Amino acid sequence: MPPISRDYNNRCRCLQVESRIIPPDNLKSIKLITEGPHCPEKEVIANLVNGAKVCLNPKSTWVKKLVHFVLGKQLSRKQATLPKA
Amino acid sequence: MPPISRDYNNRCRCLQVESRIIPPDNLKSIKLITEGPHCPEKEVIANLVNGAKVCLNPKSTWVKKLVHFVLGKQLSRKQATLPKA
Repeated sequence: MPPISRDYNNRCRCLQVESRIIPPDNLKSIKLITEGPHCPEKEVIANLVNGAKVCLNPKSTWVKKLVHFVLGKQLSRKQATLPKA
Repeated sequence: MPPISRDYNNRCRCLQVESRIIPPDNLKSIKLITEGPHCPEKEVIANLVNGAKVCLNPKSTWVKKLVHFVLGKQLSRKQATLPKA
């Protein structure tokens, strides 16, 4: 699901979250937004290679794995394993 | 260190990375940018509560812990422990 607003200072950006898994190769960046006065829920917004933005469920195990993969990509390439979630 | 450019599609945004630890309460969001044609290194940019943006070292253990903390905040509050890095 695309974010509903660019202005995350005033309100939540995600009304719904995407449940389909995004292959890491399709990913350009991930933004993790903490909960706060603007929004009671943390939000995770993926920016895809094709320019699309999708809201992900921060509670999903696969989303946590995706984040670990992005952070640990170079390491995991050397070790030929993904970091454990 | 602040990011050098808003246009991360064309070049790396970070020339140097901050090594000082950022307390999680000062953090508004974290952006993880994968390596790609625009930049050979993955980049991690923290957006602070005071509006400042700082580039972090994605290889640092504390940066990975910070990301885990943001993702697992609600869970860790219930469990009264931080997720293992």
